[in-house]
Amino acid sequence: MIKANDPSLTSWVEVDPKSDFPIQNLPFGIFKTQSSSPRIGVAIGDQVLDLAILNKLGFLDNLKIDNSVFTNQYLNDFIALGKQTTMAVRERISNLLNANNAELRDNKEAQAKVLQYISNVQMQMPVRIGDYTDFYSSIDHATNVGTMFRDPTNALLPNWKHLPVGYHGRASSIVVSGTDFHRPKGQTKPADSELPVFGPTKLLDFELETAFIIGKSTNMGESVTTANAGDYIFGMTLFNDWSARDVQTWEYVPLGPFLAKNFASTISPWIVTMEALEPFRTAGYTQEPKVLPYLEYSGDKNIDIQLDVIIQPENGEETLVSHSNYKFMYWTMEQQLAHHTVNGCNINIGDVMASGTISGPTPESFGSMLEITWRGTKPVKMKDGSERKFINDNDTVIMRGYAEKDGVRIGFGEAKGKVLPTL
Amino acid sequence: MIKANDPSLTSWVEVDPKSDFPIQNLPFGIFKTQSSSPRIGVAIGDQVLDLAILNKLGFLDNLKIDNSVFTNQYLNDFIALGKQTTMAVRERISNLLNANNAELRDNKEAQAKVLQYISNVQMQMPVRIGDYTDFYSSIDHATNVGTMFRDPTNALLPNWKHLPVGYHGRASSIVVSGTDFHRPKGQTKPADSELPVFGPTKLLDFELETAFIIGKSTNMGESVTTANAGDYIFGMTLFNDWSARDVQTWEYVPLGPFLAKNFASTISPWIVTMEALEPFRTAGYTQEPKVLPYLEYSGDKNIDIQLDVIIQPENGEETLVSHSNYKFMYWTMEQQLAHHTVNGCNINIGDVMASGTISGPTPESFGSMLEITWRGTKPVKMKDGSERKFINDNDTVIMRGYAEKDGVRIGFGEAKGKVLPTL
Repeated sequence: MIKANDPSLTSWVEVDPKSDFPIQNLPFGIFKTQSSSPRIGVAIGDQVLDLAILNKLGFLDNLKIDNSVFTNQYLNDFIALGKQTTMAVRERISNLLNANNAELRDNKEAQAKVLQYISNVQMQMPVRIGDYTDFYSSIDHATNVGTMFRDPTNALLPNWKHLPVGYHGRASSIVVSGTDFHRPKGQTKPADSELPVFGPTKLLDFELETAFIIGKSTNMGESVTTANAGDYIFGMTLFNDWSARDVQTWEYVPLGPFLAKNFASTISPWIVTMEALEPFRTAGYTQEPKVLPYLEYSGDKNIDIQLDVIIQPENGEETLVSHSNYKFMYWTMEQQLAHHTVNGCNINIGDVMASGTISGPTPESFGSMLEITWRGTKPVKMKDGSERKFINDNDTVIMRGYAEKDGVRIGFGEAKGKVLPTL
Repeated sequence: MIKANDPSLTSWVEVDPKSDFPIQNLPFGIFKTQSSSPRIGVAIGDQVLDLAILNKLGFLDNLKIDNSVFTNQYLNDFIALGKQTTMAVRERISNLLNANNAELRDNKEAQAKVLQYISNVQMQMPVRIGDYTDFYSSIDHATNVGTMFRDPTNALLPNWKHLPVGYHGRASSIVVSGTDFHRPKGQTKPADSELPVFGPTKLLDFELETAFIIGKSTNMGESVTTANAGDYIFGMTLFNDWSARDVQTWEYVPLGPFLAKNFASTISPWIVTMEALEPFRTAGYTQEPKVLPYLEYSGDKNIDIQLDVIIQPENGEETLVSHSNYKFMYWTMEQQLAHHTVNGCNINIGDVMASGTISGPTPESFGSMLEITWRGTKPVKMKDGSERKFINDNDTVIMRGYAEKDGVRIGFGEAKGKVLPTL
């Protein structure tokens, strides 16, 4: 087994100490180049290791995996091999990249074939997503929203502490980091208007989230428990659940968000495995009132993942607008998955389950402009002197995340998207 | 062009006058047998025409379609050929089955290869569903629910007449007619309990719906208009949006239904084309207040489709509990699709968009037990003398639908599912 947080592990591939992708990480993604079709890659430093060629050259022979699994536009078939196999692949890659292993280190010809700079490749959607679910599991976020839109003295709805509230979102419009999109149009009802109006959203927002990727399917009628949920979670990504707040306010009763969120969501391209994140587990919230037995869990199930949100104006400097942490979640992934399947709802490999906006207890750690600017009443000062209440045209929103301990940094790369003017 | 309602058209295949599948219908589905893998079939009377073999025998040669399109477990690739081609296939089949055409009529050997009794085959899911959307577009249903749960004098929420309210549902648990499922468990909060409890739903309900199947994809950023929406709709099915009312009441604020609906939805196996349904178009509701320009439409866009819901107890007689009609819809499919994409949300071939519960103005035409029994206060008398407030274990719920005019009946077959006891 790879010890993910072992600082003594080093690679013969040069890795900057600030890199998200040291040898302890080894996340999986799909990339293509101008001359090659999509295939599976593993990030190491600022390079990507081409698993299709690595396998073709015989370096993965002991694993006996058909190369069509690696020359694939999605990770689904690879994930379907099962955790035992995907963990063995990751371990083999760790060995191959280890500074003490000469196999690939001393084979410059093979190196030239299997390694490319990430800056020279195009990252693709990592998985074919069957269904996408979004939760609402940050207590600070739910409290902030409840305070703003309902009742500050009674901000959380009665069900909130009894179940991880969630809803189904649109899978078709989840796009990989770097995909720009146009400001959506929609129906809104301004406070000073008797009738609704139509036009570009005026309150375009990000939502800082993480997502977990389902690694094992179930049949209808089966339920996952909090105890075995880990077997069903392949890894995690960053996730920006773009939201049009004015559209949302008008449309969302009684059946929830729809056009306010289904125009685009941005996912980071590298799936960081749960094995790589394991050393960063930390205690979760003390849940009071006590949850129902099917939601009980034991052990440290939160994860200490630092999360940043940056706004970058057109040709401008980056301004950090949020610094949050995944450890602020009230409901754990294991609870979310147990709840999602307790009624027999089936899940499939590649399904995406997002956390919901992750806000911490202080304004600096709020995960949306809605909260950061408190509905636009406290604009954010940008480094270029301008102000933001929500997201402007030609702004790029960048999310970054990393877990760090004992000198080892397990990072996610970026979930980045630019808002183009309305079509 | 086939004249769908031409009563003079007859087939050499024997078709009962009460059949859903005369030569004027010719719906597409996927079937398999004990000896054959999934493939595309067309229903005619009580038989299914095997398009894979029909093509292999040369009867579709003029259309030049690769047989892999027909020997496929889903209709998606076939639909992707485009309406011009799929309409030409349907027209060719109509000619081949026509009583006046000797090609197949007088070729008993070929007939034996291409025709099988539907009762001898197993119908499959017709499409691979990317995303599933459920609307809420029946004014009588929305009014009934608003009256029961909110305010009888103000039953419709302010947005209801301005936009077709909809939400995203779970695609993974949509199953083809004939698939049984177990009563779901879930968290509910009884009125007399301070805390929520966990157990099998006590208020399992059906929702009588139709669904339309997307026939043409869009890219993110593109919008479909009410005028060109027809190009994007391949056909229709029946749809039962099974619902656990007690789970729904407790979970649905503020983000909408989740576990109350994602345990199972039942779809009928035959996709009836819009061409077959065209003669049954009828005027829609007069929409007051006037809708925003992007939702305006012209022409007769509702469809006169009679819809029945039957409950059949274990080994018991069928009891009709609802007789409704698709023409009662306030919002048309064209408006639903224009709204769904007005923000640039992309749609894909095979996506399913369901109508929401279809209730008419009278109790006989209500589309859910919630409404029929008015929250259980007016139980339904069954033919076997028992009563139903909601759906019992081992009940089978059967939905049937057909359009009928000038002696031509364009039917949908059945959407049928049996509720097994909780696992």
